[in-house]
Amino acid sequence: MSFQGIEEAYNRISNIVNKTPVMTSRTLDLQLKANIFFKCENFQRVGAFKFRGAYNTLSLLSERQKEKGVISHSSGNHAQAIALSASLLGIKATIVMPKGAPENKINATKSYGAQVVFCDNTLEARTKTTKEIIKEQKFVLIHPYDNDDIINGQGTAAYELVKEIGHLDIVITPLGGGGLLSGTALATKGLCPNARVIGVEPSLADDALRSLKAGFIVPSTYPNTIADGLRTSLCERTFNTIRTYVDDIITVSEFEIIDAMKFLWERMKIIVEPSGAVPLAAILSKKISVENKKVGAILSGGNIDIEPFFQLLEKKIA
Amino acid sequence: MSFQGIEEAYNRISNIVNKTPVMTSRTLDLQLKANIFFKCENFQRVGAFKFRGAYNTLSLLSERQKEKGVISHSSGNHAQAIALSASLLGIKATIVMPKGAPENKINATKSYGAQVVFCDNTLEARTKTTKEIIKEQKFVLIHPYDNDDIINGQGTAAYELVKEIGHLDIVITPLGGGGLLSGTALATKGLCPNARVIGVEPSLADDALRSLKAGFIVPSTYPNTIADGLRTSLCERTFNTIRTYVDDIITVSEFEIIDAMKFLWERMKIIVEPSGAVPLAAILSKKISVENKKVGAILSGGNIDIEPFFQLLEKKIA
Repeated sequence: MSFQGIEEAYNRISNIVNKTPVMTSRTLDLQLKANIFFKCENFQRVGAFKFRGAYNTLSLLSERQKEKGVISHSSGNHAQAIALSASLLGIKATIVMPKGAPENKINATKSYGAQVVFCDNTLEARTKTTKEIIKEQKFVLIHPYDNDDIINGQGTAAYELVKEIGHLDIVITPLGGGGLLSGTALATKGLCPNARVIGVEPSLADDALRSLKAGFIVPSTYPNTIADGLRTSLCERTFNTIRTYVDDIITVSEFEIIDAMKFLWERMKIIVEPSGAVPLAAILSKKISVENKKVGAILSGGNIDIEPFFQLLEKKIA
Repeated sequence: MSFQGIEEAYNRISNIVNKTPVMTSRTLDLQLKANIFFKCENFQRVGAFKFRGAYNTLSLLSERQKEKGVISHSSGNHAQAIALSASLLGIKATIVMPKGAPENKINATKSYGAQVVFCDNTLEARTKTTKEIIKEQKFVLIHPYDNDDIINGQGTAAYELVKEIGHLDIVITPLGGGGLLSGTALATKGLCPNARVIGVEPSLADDALRSLKAGFIVPSTYPNTIADGLRTSLCERTFNTIRTYVDDIITVSEFEIIDAMKFLWERMKIIVEPSGAVPLAAILSKKISVENKKVGAILSGGNIDIEPFFQLLEKKIA
């Protein structure tokens, strides 16, 4: 992965990915005396930036690999991203999902034409089931972030943002496994070397902060944060990139995450999932000083189960 | 009101109103074999198209009227639109609101600097309170739709849409008092005379359809539809415009409205209030035939109380 890799990925995928809009809020900018530019990856295909990396990676597979088909284990946005990318490229995809994954995510994955295989709801069961299938069927495993092509793809979000807005003083992204943050750091430093790049993770899932302090990877204990996309651990690849290129790691509380989501829903009228709202949580809680600054914040996704809200609404009209 | 009036309004207010984005959905277009262009007035200032008409009207007041100040009675988007417009133009605004109006709407109205006066929660009480204040204080009453400048302002949404997208076969808007539909019809027919213009109202509030059939205004009984912005009756001004320029009126059920909202929230990741979702409700329920057509649909606003959903979320992390 590299700045050049991101530029190449951008040229490769820009006709297929959505050029997501950049949104601003007068209220917020006035309140903070800053210019905050939200890169709305909740409007990306499958509802999250994950499509960028998945499509970039699958389109770079050899013909032989494409014929074999791909496999991934995830209950989240990466699964849907692989399913849609495979479908667009005519590749067979299998997704290992835990039993009890949300119905809407299972249906979405199936609707893109992927085969869904269920396993028990533990990380071990997922890995084991996936390995067994690979042994038998020879599918190519696509890791959600421990992969240069994935990271180059994720970097195209920040690349697009900076190309559109111009110089930024700070660029902020959510931080889970570190794929988005790694790609963002490479893209941002390549286009405006003086920009600070900051990753934000939930306090409940602060394994990246602890890893950087320790100087080695402290694994995530798969904590129960509401930001379900940020529960994963770093890998060597993302750990080293973040150590080299990222300026700061900030943690936010569960309440700060919900407050930020609420601002995005209520004032900006956009649906952002908890994981996607952490950059704004860090800004609103004043943990990042943004006054007089031009700040890019990547709203990484918008996939959240809204069924409970609509059940309340339906009761009103019944 | 006229096409020329709308063009003039557009030139007058386009530096102040948000040029709202036009959004599309691959899923929807594929499913319907159509091109649906959503004009996202939920991203307008104050969260609804109402700001267009309010700002246009207040900026056209004489200096004497501006000095007197303005008054309006509403618990909805018009109130906030008048409050913000008045504040931007340095005009004193008073809003008469029913006791028990949602806290967030009261706070928003106050936050724009308007004075809020409470009255009982009946249409009679509102009118009476407003009249009493006007008698005493000589404020200028700004009606939410029985006003040419308001209608010209509302027409700028469709004007912007057609200017951006080019020829459309059909343009669809929500229909309550008829201000948005009247302005939309004038703008659309002015720019592409062959386009069909369609208004959509809740079946529970089908007073416009009944009025057109009867040939005279059948007043709304202020019905309890979930589309709270569409409960109002036509006035002579909007009735006559709609009779002359609008091609069809469609009604949709409460469940159809909720289904459409759900599509917008879940698939498009944008928050649209029930009143704003009725054009899509008419499309999804196949009451408007859109196959092979270029269709504009105005998503009129995004102001809905999301507090109940966030209370559910907060319980999760408590």
